[in-house]
Amino acid sequence: MKLGVELETVGRRLYRLAKDGFLPFLKVPSRGTSNIIYDPETRQYVLGGREVTKTARHVGQLRSFSQITWTMRFMKELQNAKRTSTLRDVYYSSEAFNIKFKDQQQSDGVITDIEALFGVSREDLRIFPEERSSIFGDLTVEYTTPGWEGKRVCLSDNPDGVMIGPSLTNAKIVNCGADKVIAVETGGMYTRFIEEDVWSKFNAVLIHTAGQAPRSTRRLIRRLRYEVGLKTLCFTDGDPWGMHIAMVIISGSANAAHIKGLATPDASWMGVWPTDIELYDLPSDIFTDQDVKRCRELLGDPRYQNKFWRKQIKKFLKLKRKSEQQAFSRYGLSFVVDEYLPSKLEEISSQ
Amino acid sequence: MKLGVELETVGRRLYRLAKDGFLPFLKVPSRGTSNIIYDPETRQYVLGGREVTKTARHVGQLRSFSQITWTMRFMKELQNAKRTSTLRDVYYSSEAFNIKFKDQQQSDGVITDIEALFGVSREDLRIFPEERSSIFGDLTVEYTTPGWEGKRVCLSDNPDGVMIGPSLTNAKIVNCGADKVIAVETGGMYTRFIEEDVWSKFNAVLIHTAGQAPRSTRRLIRRLRYEVGLKTLCFTDGDPWGMHIAMVIISGSANAAHIKGLATPDASWMGVWPTDIELYDLPSDIFTDQDVKRCRELLGDPRYQNKFWRKQIKKFLKLKRKSEQQAFSRYGLSFVVDEYLPSKLEEISSQ
Repeated sequence: MKLGVELETVGRRLYRLAKDGFLPFLKVPSRGTSNIIYDPETRQYVLGGREVTKTARHVGQLRSFSQITWTMRFMKELQNAKRTSTLRDVYYSSEAFNIKFKDQQQSDGVITDIEALFGVSREDLRIFPEERSSIFGDLTVEYTTPGWEGKRVCLSDNPDGVMIGPSLTNAKIVNCGADKVIAVETGGMYTRFIEEDVWSKFNAVLIHTAGQAPRSTRRLIRRLRYEVGLKTLCFTDGDPWGMHIAMVIISGSANAAHIKGLATPDASWMGVWPTDIELYDLPSDIFTDQDVKRCRELLGDPRYQNKFWRKQIKKFLKLKRKSEQQAFSRYGLSFVVDEYLPSKLEEISSQ
Repeated sequence: MKLGVELETVGRRLYRLAKDGFLPFLKVPSRGTSNIIYDPETRQYVLGGREVTKTARHVGQLRSFSQITWTMRFMKELQNAKRTSTLRDVYYSSEAFNIKFKDQQQSDGVITDIEALFGVSREDLRIFPEERSSIFGDLTVEYTTPGWEGKRVCLSDNPDGVMIGPSLTNAKIVNCGADKVIAVETGGMYTRFIEEDVWSKFNAVLIHTAGQAPRSTRRLIRRLRYEVGLKTLCFTDGDPWGMHIAMVIISGSANAAHIKGLATPDASWMGVWPTDIELYDLPSDIFTDQDVKRCRELLGDPRYQNKFWRKQIKKFLKLKRKSEQQAFSRYGLSFVVDEYLPSKLEEISSQ
């Protein structure tokens, strides 16, 4: 409810300004490139101090001002009704109110402005993306969703896993028998880990990111790290794109620089490292031009400036080969769990 | 276990042939275009009677013969161990045995041959795709997965839904309080339906297909129709691609013509119909050239030859506009549930 109150406070201020004979305005943190700063201390992108003013004073800004106030009103209603919505819904819903957005990109941009204004993510504002991850493990949650209030569910009851949607994102964590989280890129490996009892043998909560982890999943990973104290490991394909899935969990992304509470700075990338490709003689593919280009970009990325990461990227560029998680199957389906995983966990904990 | 026995029987026959001094061979139904026939009676694609012989007799066929026998051996092991695998895993696993596949397309093709040989889907053979749908509703299942045997779970316990993976696909259905299934294309609408209590107000089990429904999801939809007796409705975006998601649930796809038990011939496409776009004055986009081309293709598709479907396609071609499920949000978030859904259910049940 706190956010509902904050939204209302902003609305009341605008209303009071108008009532007192002033043209209402809002100051919103600038999201321009020059205001996105990498903070080496917290190892995250953050916004600098610049702000832009949205005001009813200029005719040319009236539309953008009414867009942002209407969207906040829409969000306030979601808070009151304890309902969720999607980016697409916001775009279409505006039509009923004669609020014109040029396209969905424009309404998405306004939602991002509001995220920046309150320093929270759109999921806090009850707006969820299409993409969903799933979770499995010895973790008991208590839902707070209307109709499910107080309902406790253990996330190892369903062996295929449970969706990470609006309800799980807002659930309380009541009990956890695990000591680590392993975020896994592909569904095949996630299912393999469940079947091979990784969750009980290694005390791990398993999360299937399904590629790049959506923000709500990143926030859940962070909660499990700092609320519950679990170690965090990311297991991805061995290519620059998989490596970056891990990095976004660790350090966040530049376009979410305005949001706090998404990154898990002390999470580890468990593999597949380029050195693993050699060490385990994994089936691999030759780098494409895009893979090479991507590695070069990452070398210049502030998040990749420590020794560990630079070594990995340089190794990729030298090897010019990539391997998928499932490549371990060449040694049998359970090799990745019986051999690779224990040796990797030992290596990482001794670092 | 039945399939394990069938796999073994085929293996024993090959072994006996070799032992008796014959060069072993297998007859596999042909999957060539000319052997894929549309059966208007069952409203499904089926395979004709042509077969191809895989034999160890010709040097040129030795590789293909050893590929199919090795893959059946791999599948037999999955049956014994009650484990699952993926198309990708099969490709990589072959390396350990010096069975060379040119690429994954080739190993996928061999898996399809084996599906055709036994008339079952790869999920029956315990090989699952990456894509996952999810399910929510008043439905109690009993898992048969090792470690979960006898565990009963109600699929309305988790308000974000439960993944449809290997375990749910093989679970027993013990109890169901619903009288219909609504398969929904997008995650946004699926979550909306859960939040707006569609499942209890309309006695519906909800399935999120996440685009084209994977085979295991199509099979589950079929089981709910013919095992439990639920009515089946498909709710997709209002464009030729959404319409076809419904059609594949209803009549199956040509490239799964060799598999029985996937289609639900008396399922209904609930919308968004092109007539709905006009009737509800939905926000819409103009057809692209691809949309037009797709509609023309579907006019020639044997599955679309009855009056209802031809009318829909012609209407699309006349209107040249498409609308998403979420377009109903222009009338408020709950309009789709309060107005559209009841009137559509009435219209369909009176047909």
